[in-house]
Amino acid sequence: MLTVVELEDARSMPLQRFADYAVRRTCVVSLDEALGRVIACDVVASEGVPPFDRSTMDGFAVVASDTFGCSEALPAMLTLAGEVDMGVAPTCTCLPGTCVRIPTGGQMPQGANAVVMLERCEEYGDGTVGIMKAVAPGDNMVFRYDDVKPGQPVLFAGTKLDPHHVGSLASMGIMECSVFDAVTVGIISTGDEIVDAACEPIGAQMRDVNAPMLASAVQACGARPIRYPIVPDEYEALLHAVRRALGECDMVLISGGSSAGQRDNTARVLSELGSLLYHGVAVKPGKPTMCADVQGKPAFGLPGHPVAAYFMFLEAVRPLLARMCGTSGRHGRRVCVRLREGIPSNHGRSEIVAVRLEGEPDVVPALESESGHAVLSQGDACGNEPSAIPVRSKSGLISSLASADGYIVVGRNTEGVPAGQAVEVRLF
Amino acid sequence: MLTVVELEDARSMPLQRFADYAVRRTCVVSLDEALGRVIACDVVASEGVPPFDRSTMDGFAVVASDTFGCSEALPAMLTLAGEVDMGVAPTCTCLPGTCVRIPTGGQMPQGANAVVMLERCEEYGDGTVGIMKAVAPGDNMVFRYDDVKPGQPVLFAGTKLDPHHVGSLASMGIMECSVFDAVTVGIISTGDEIVDAACEPIGAQMRDVNAPMLASAVQACGARPIRYPIVPDEYEALLHAVRRALGECDMVLISGGSSAGQRDNTARVLSELGSLLYHGVAVKPGKPTMCADVQGKPAFGLPGHPVAAYFMFLEAVRPLLARMCGTSGRHGRRVCVRLREGIPSNHGRSEIVAVRLEGEPDVVPALESESGHAVLSQGDACGNEPSAIPVRSKSGLISSLASADGYIVVGRNTEGVPAGQAVEVRLF
Repeated sequence: MLTVVELEDARSMPLQRFADYAVRRTCVVSLDEALGRVIACDVVASEGVPPFDRSTMDGFAVVASDTFGCSEALPAMLTLAGEVDMGVAPTCTCLPGTCVRIPTGGQMPQGANAVVMLERCEEYGDGTVGIMKAVAPGDNMVFRYDDVKPGQPVLFAGTKLDPHHVGSLASMGIMECSVFDAVTVGIISTGDEIVDAACEPIGAQMRDVNAPMLASAVQACGARPIRYPIVPDEYEALLHAVRRALGECDMVLISGGSSAGQRDNTARVLSELGSLLYHGVAVKPGKPTMCADVQGKPAFGLPGHPVAAYFMFLEAVRPLLARMCGTSGRHGRRVCVRLREGIPSNHGRSEIVAVRLEGEPDVVPALESESGHAVLSQGDACGNEPSAIPVRSKSGLISSLASADGYIVVGRNTEGVPAGQAVEVRLF
Repeated sequence: MLTVVELEDARSMPLQRFADYAVRRTCVVSLDEALGRVIACDVVASEGVPPFDRSTMDGFAVVASDTFGCSEALPAMLTLAGEVDMGVAPTCTCLPGTCVRIPTGGQMPQGANAVVMLERCEEYGDGTVGIMKAVAPGDNMVFRYDDVKPGQPVLFAGTKLDPHHVGSLASMGIMECSVFDAVTVGIISTGDEIVDAACEPIGAQMRDVNAPMLASAVQACGARPIRYPIVPDEYEALLHAVRRALGECDMVLISGGSSAGQRDNTARVLSELGSLLYHGVAVKPGKPTMCADVQGKPAFGLPGHPVAAYFMFLEAVRPLLARMCGTSGRHGRRVCVRLREGIPSNHGRSEIVAVRLEGEPDVVPALESESGHAVLSQGDACGNEPSAIPVRSKSGLISSLASADGYIVVGRNTEGVPAGQAVEVRLF
């Protein structure tokens, strides 16, 4: 028999249990879609970069030794042998005693081994150029394959592709690459009364709020939601649906089952397929939340009530999912402000209370390490200290969150929170 | 004649000039694609939520006055009149003296005005139920339209859609909504030598690295890149291309033109179409960078050199673009660590130096307000202090950034940075 766990455990137990979970499926994406993906195998240069010796300055390509010892007072006098055009292989050769005009990025003419920048040269108009600065071989140019040699590994498996990596791949003409698949999350809504949100409810049916909401929440973590058909309150149907989803996804979220019979179904199915880490969380709302390990994959049972399902997604599911997706740093921003109105309490369990913010507080990210605790926001230059105001609604239905910016967690062993106390708001 | 500006100005001048720029085009998206979009007009409830009186507990629906004065010692004895099934309109009525079994979420039977939770009731098996707790009218239930009344505005124009907003819309069966268009950024590469990255270069042609790289960088800000054909080094062709792109996009990035002739074209075109805010930045690499205001829209000229183009995108373009997209908080994370190897300098202008990190530093976001300065990372529990190591490459081509994690800016009036000094690394 599993006991009910604290909210902190509901977050940390899945993180510990699935610490090593990694997606190993790969797919091939075009360069246009590669941003942010993690490459699955080393990328080896198919060609060298740059493909030819190139000037890195506007100036004159020279034989370096022709310039040794020259100066402004005593320019080296070279004969202009021609000009290099951008994008065209040079037709002239740079023999000793001659120079060739060249733009930045132009291909070096044969014979030349350095470039003198334009500002250090003077054309006399008679086909002669005065060089006023000595250059060493290799100055102001890059040699063929300086950047990348053919066959050289340029990107290693596990690299998350930033724009400059995309640039690297483009420079070698690599227009697609093998990346790890996105983390996939199966979403199952259960309940005899639930119909697809797009349908017109008949009688006492209710639209499915959780599936579209959780799909968006999964997307926001960088994972790919996969929605499954709504399952009625039947053990066999749920067992079949969860087994299928776990076969196809990296994680499964089952929502619904807020009535006792439905709860039992979800717990029974998860126990049948794997083992429950916890069953029930001492928090209001969100008690009927559970997490199971099904052959190494995480499966969560979330409340049917949309507000509770959303809070418990944020508290119990998101930390794990964000880490599986490598997006931990982007989530869970927090802000510390004073509470404008007191919150009475308490029910022997933690309470999650939606709040809206007034004023413009300083926001800090909650780092994965949890070291990112916010310090009290001091507000703007006018001394308007920002504050948090509880968003109350009798029904607690999902629209009541529309005006909220985040929520606070009131600890289980407190007598509520008095007005004026500093609280840490977790932003949506 | 415009003078060259400092790196800080290259960032702040566009932010100031285009402070009020806002996209006003709208489009309709389905709920599946709505996450993170900003709604363009108020959403009014097409129907009420919930559509009927609902129980919020497993228990018995009652006429509240029947329970007044009851207790564990003296239960109210009610006759069980029937049971409500989920998703089905009740067929029985709750008359005074009777009660009806009801699950959480079930539709209240006619006559009932409160629910007693299961744990406070006892069934005696003879069709009688003992109620051990008095309830007030409305207890443990929500009334029809408690959450949302038909015609009530539920979301206001300008709201960025979080998952719970998606849930709100789904609860009313609103499956699509009008949102502001994504910020669009036109991307133009210029240069006679540039060919599409997918093409095989002939002679001294070079693959276009900047367009795919900048397109990814634009995407990373949450904007939509629109790529235009590569433009040769011809004034009229560039004028035409930039005019077209500015007509179709919110911002235009022109890259290339690192040779003097090309630079002149970009500056001439931007001056012809609008007015230059600055022309040239005192930074290495990145000098040939410019920004113009073309009839209220920002247009940037970026260097042709991919490394320089990327750095200048991050420094000069991204702050503005991120603000236009409302994603400022997610970018520009910084970390403060010691420099492992000294960086000699200096060229009378700021220098951007790519670095890689060793160890695991604490990362802080650079807030838009610029108040988010990092404090020196203290490293892990073992005392391994993280550090930054300059990534040097002769060529400075884009692949040299593959091993870098970010960059530091060495101020123009310094003599470089000695080993051991604390530096602020701006992460890619």
